[in-house]
Formats: sequence, C-alpha cells, structure tokens
Amino acid sequence: MTPKRTESIREGKSKILYRTDKPDTVIQYFKDDATAFNAQKKGSIKDKGPINNGVSTSVFKFLEKNGVRTHFLEKLSDREMLCRSLEIIPVEMVLRNKATGSITKRLGLEKGMPFSPPLVEFFYKSDALGDPLIGEGHIAYLKWASKDELNQMIETTLKVNTLLRPVFKEIGLELIDFKLEFGKDKSGNLYLGDEFTADGCRLWDLKTGESMDKDRFRQDLGKVDETYLDVSERLQNYFKGKL
Amino acid sequence: MTPKRTESIREGKSKILYRTDKPDTVIQYFKDDATAFNAQKKGSIKDKGPINNGVSTSVFKFLEKNGVRTHFLEKLSDREMLCRSLEIIPVEMVLRNKATGSITKRLGLEKGMPFSPPLVEFFYKSDALGDPLIGEGHIAYLKWASKDELNQMIETTLKVNTLLRPVFKEIGLELIDFKLEFGKDKSGNLYLGDEFTADGCRLWDLKTGESMDKDRFRQDLGKVDETYLDVSERLQNYFKGKL
Repeated sequence: MTPKRTESIREGKSKILYRTDKPDTVIQYFKDDATAFNAQKKGSIKDKGPINNGVSTSVFKFLEKNGVRTHFLEKLSDREMLCRSLEIIPVEMVLRNKATGSITKRLGLEKGMPFSPPLVEFFYKSDALGDPLIGEGHIAYLKWASKDELNQMIETTLKVNTLLRPVFKEIGLELIDFKLEFGKDKSGNLYLGDEFTADGCRLWDLKTGESMDKDRFRQDLGKVDETYLDVSERLQNYFKGKL
Repeated sequence: MTPKRTESIREGKSKILYRTDKPDTVIQYFKDDATAFNAQKKGSIKDKGPINNGVSTSVFKFLEKNGVRTHFLEKLSDREMLCRSLEIIPVEMVLRNKATGSITKRLGLEKGMPFSPPLVEFFYKSDALGDPLIGEGHIAYLKWASKDELNQMIETTLKVNTLLRPVFKEIGLELIDFKLEFGKDKSGNLYLGDEFTADGCRLWDLKTGESMDKDRFRQDLGKVDETYLDVSERLQNYFKGKL
C-alpha cells in the first residue's frame, strides 16, 4: 500500500514536510513557491514543484547507485517524495567550483574565479539569523555535528561534486556551486537529505555562460519557467534508462 | 643610536606605521583615536596611545619570555614601539572564552556562554569588506596562509590565551576574548604582530562583571578613560620586576 501523508510537520519556503502512516518515513511535498534573499523576494515558478521533485528523484537515484546514502525512498506522485525520517543537522554545506553570488561580495572575489580543489563552506541553517557562515570550530563547539560526522559530510559533498559535474557537462551545463543538507536516522546513520534542484545550485550554460538556475529568478533575468523546464528535460533525457 | 622614524607606511584606526633608519624594522606609533563598528563610531580616549603602547610592551615582553615569538623589539618613547618589519597575514585570529559581542547576534548565542575549549575564529582583515568571518578553507584556497602557518597561528593563539588568562585573573579580570594578528619576516618566519590592548580584547571585572575594555566606548558605558588607565595600572603593577 502506498504510504499516505498525515499531519504536516513544517512548511518551508519551497516544500512542506508531512508525517505518514508508514513508520520512520516522511513525505516531502514540493511547492511552486520561489523565494530569494532570505524570503525578502517572493514569487512562484510554473510547475517548479513537479520539476524539482523529478530532478531530485533522478539525482538521488543516481547518487544512491554510486554509493551516496540519501534519504530518498520513492517518488509517490508529481509533487510528493517519500523519504526516510531524519533529524536534520542545522548546517548547510555549500560547495563552490567557481566564485559567484554571496562569496564575491563577501570576500571581494571576481565572479567566475575557480576554486581548485573546490571550496566547501558551512552555513548555520537559521532563517531568523539569515543562515550565517560558520567554520568547523563553530560546528564542533555548538555540537551540531561531531568531528567525524562533519568529515563524512565534507567527503560526501566532494563526492557528490565529482559525480554530478560530468553529468551536467554532458547536458551542456557547468556545475558552479550547490548546497546540500544532511540528517541522521534514529540509529545515528548519516544521510544526504533535502533536495538537489536548480533552486539550490548554480548551473551555467557551457556555450553562452548564461545562468540556468534560480539566479534567473533572483536577478530577474527572464525565462525563469522555461529554464527550470529546460534543465529538467535535459537531465531526465540524460538519465533515461540509466537509473 | 635610537632608530628614528622616516616616512609613514600606512595610518590605521589607532596606529601609524613608519619606516625607520634601521633595516628590517618599523615603528608603531600609538594614537589616542578610538573607533568602533568598522569606524562608523569615532572618538578618542585620553592617553590611549601611551597606555596601549605600555600595555602592549609588557604583554609582548611577557609572551616572549614564555616562548611566543612577537614582532616587539623595543619601546622607544611614550607612543612609539620599534618592531620587526613583517608582511602581515590578512587574517584576524579571534579567540573566545565566552560568547559576547558579534557572535551572540550572529549565531543567536546567550551572552556569557562559555566555550570550553576556547573557540578560535578567523576574519579576513579588510576594512572595505567589514572584516568578514572566514573558515580554514578560505584561508587555504585564497593562499593567505599555508595550512602549516595557520596551524602555527592557531596554536600560538591558544598558547597566548593559556598564558594571559591567569595574568588577568591575578589582577581581578576575566579574559573573555581577544584578537591577534600575525605576520612573516623576509625569511618566512611567523611572528605575533600588531598589539595586545584593551582595544582588541574583552575583560570583565571578576567581582562586578563590568566591562573593562573598549566595550565601554562602543556601548557608551561611561568611565572610558578611567578604565583604560585602571587596567593599565593593574597590569603594570603585576608585571613590575617580572619582565
């Protein structure tokens, strides 16, 4: 029997999390809502919910096939993904292959400056505080993750980059940066959680250099709906028969 | 012959740096100017120049005696300190024994929350960018310091804390946090640079809990001049005959 959602646990900017009638699982419901700059800018993107659910499903399946443990269990419907229930670690892992966005202003770096090897940054997941940058020291001392868990999170983040960069290259896109979140199940096992979508990464067209991600929404670059659909179609096309 | 200052190299918020007629040395000239909040607040503190020169001189002598390499060579006059010429590493090391100031707002921590072991934070020394917080990753990738140099800087910062906490305790003060800067000489040897004064640390009176540092100026707590003089006198008294 297909698990069904019961009461909602919390509503975020782009998803709602529900309990289900199946133990130790949750349902992620993907909305069309789009926000930027800590929700100071609000809007919606046509069919973003189904698109992001589909993209995340494919990416998680691909990562699982390649040895990355994710919370993904099953795509239930257009907008619903069944996931392992996790205790979320309040640290956003950001991996940057090239400098763009907040880091260029923060550190006065030129847009497009490559990080080789890639740079991994940590942010404290807190809307109230505006997701502030933190260092390894803060994570250890504030007991958000143990040293060992943090190392696993860093290794997995680097591995996800190594796995996904060639995939995006194959579909004409450069993976510039992305954000990951992790969580632990009841036994303390670490899993990649949340989602992997154009909302949480930057993709530049390999030929034109154009942004093919949420920066189109952030910066009012136009063709937002079309871009989300385009990236999704390229990716689903690439993964066809492979997952 | 006493070295004499020649042309000025740069003027900071509280000091002027001069070349001298002696090779590989500079003179730090301590001003009375006081600034806070990235120089948005400006003022001056009576005799701060001579007081800070005196406090820094004593602290540097004490640290040198205990195996910490500093740029200090000689106190030349009330306001002048002769130092080794260093290439400054643009990273401010901040050690926190208890939470107060920027970190309480940044991470939503309660004022006075102890860090045990102490927390070491890194900030990119850039007035234009407002001295942003950085992590170990940024320092390595932006080549501000090698991994080995950063480790030396962290170790020295922890050692300075271990050495100075009991000193301040002896004079009735709790060392809450402090900022250090490092630099390298022509041969690449690492030295503690800049200064150690009530401008760059927080000291709480052990009995009353009152701020005995630049927070009196930042927060308009009154008795600013008196506090700088009081801390200086207690410290010079303590060090008398010991250095």
